[in-house]
Amino acid sequence: MTASSLTLYFAPGTCALATRIALLEAQAEHTLVTLDFAAQQQRSPEYLAINPKGRVPALVTEHGVLTETCALLLYVAQRFPVANLAPLDDPFALARMQELNSYLASTVHVAHAHGRRGNRWADAPESIADMQRKVPQTMAESFEDIENYYLRDSGPWVLGNRYSVADPYLFTLARWLRSDSVDIAQFPRVAAHQARMLERAAVQKALG
Amino acid sequence: MTASSLTLYFAPGTCALATRIALLEAQAEHTLVTLDFAAQQQRSPEYLAINPKGRVPALVTEHGVLTETCALLLYVAQRFPVANLAPLDDPFALARMQELNSYLASTVHVAHAHGRRGNRWADAPESIADMQRKVPQTMAESFEDIENYYLRDSGPWVLGNRYSVADPYLFTLARWLRSDSVDIAQFPRVAAHQARMLERAAVQKALG
Ligand SMILES: N[C@@H](CCC(=O)N[C@@H](CS)C(=O)NCC(=O)O)C(=O)O
Ligand SMILES: N[C@@H](CCC(=O)N[C@@H](CS)C(=O)NCC(=O)O)C(=O)O
Repeated sequence: MTASSLTLYFAPGTCALATRIALLEAQAEHTLVTLDFAAQQQRSPEYLAINPKGRVPALVTEHGVLTETCALLLYVAQRFPVANLAPLDDPFALARMQELNSYLASTVHVAHAHGRRGNRWADAPESIADMQRKVPQTMAESFEDIENYYLRDSGPWVLGNRYSVADPYLFTLARWLRSDSVDIAQFPRVAAHQARMLERAAVQKALG
Repeated sequence: MTASSLTLYFAPGTCALATRIALLEAQAEHTLVTLDFAAQQQRSPEYLAINPKGRVPALVTEHGVLTETCALLLYVAQRFPVANLAPLDDPFALARMQELNSYLASTVHVAHAHGRRGNRWADAPESIADMQRKVPQTMAESFEDIENYYLRDSGPWVLGNRYSVADPYLFTLARWLRSDSVDIAQFPRVAAHQARMLERAAVQKALG
């Protein structure tokens, strides 16, 4: 593999941080391309040719472009097995990992997006304001589920003693709590996880 | 494995149909428990003890309960490898499968849910009516992406010649187009996929 065979399209503060951390954890050589969302670069013709959905993350591989965080995280884990980022050969443990990742993508990320991108689902300014008002509640409810269900018997990491790509994904979305006016201190397991993640070299590098 | 070691909690017309079809394709012995949504059984204390999120599907296994369609579909494929329901050893092909599954869960299912469950994301009746009005547009846009991006070089199935658990999931959500006032005929690849799926014994059994 050459240095240029993987390219991650990224933007700061987005869910693409999870894939960025996973690539760093895997010590995968890759090129990082940072899009400027303020300049709407995700909607430029150049970027739409890469990802017609106009979103990040997108990962360009030698076989083609891949999108969707859940798919990219599993791909990184499977492509760099030495890094041991997923219980690939244990169907139940892998399903546990995918269960959280899928919940993060389909429920938590979606709850948050109603505060920024309400125009995806409604048109009237009042509806969009109504959605924005509800974000602190839906994000808090989602993190209650995470605290009490997904992390119910977890050790330091989502899967217990085993670090996996579910950890950077949880870390990434939990960082949105503050701007969504939810106090992370209500969720001691999530808060401890967040602190633990910040100690990791890959996380520091991804944020730095 | 005994007949009772897998139990699927299901409701007609829901996304749980995808997991039901996958289990039948895998010829996996399982018990089916059908919840009555009209009677709100998904919110009964008994069911919340199984899945505190109050949703279907949930799959009870001998190791514990699993939720989230994307996780269950991969689990069925990995647990019953003889059925060959996923390209488990090809990271890129598996990522392609997961990419569509994750898009279905995080974007298509979510678009549809704004027509039925708008109160998840807003409170005022006007906001909820506004969301409902937009569903035909967001569902049509999602299926344009599916037609032109996800199925761009597909053969009979999502992954080309290879049938996988992405097929029952696409089939399940495409069935929602009609009630969302979107004409499937606009999407010839999706329509042909739908017809092909209806020929399969597992699909007929799941619907029967
Ligand atoms: N389901 C996708 C969602 C990707 C997504 O929505 N990304 C956001 C950033 S967090 C984005 O690129 N938004 C740009 C826009 O909406 O214009 C995933 O999980 O990767
Ligand atoms: N992200 C979950 C979503 C599950 C879900 O929303 N299921 C719906 C049926 S399609 C449900 O059980 N709704 C019941 C309710 O909201 O009360 C998945 O993909 O499995």
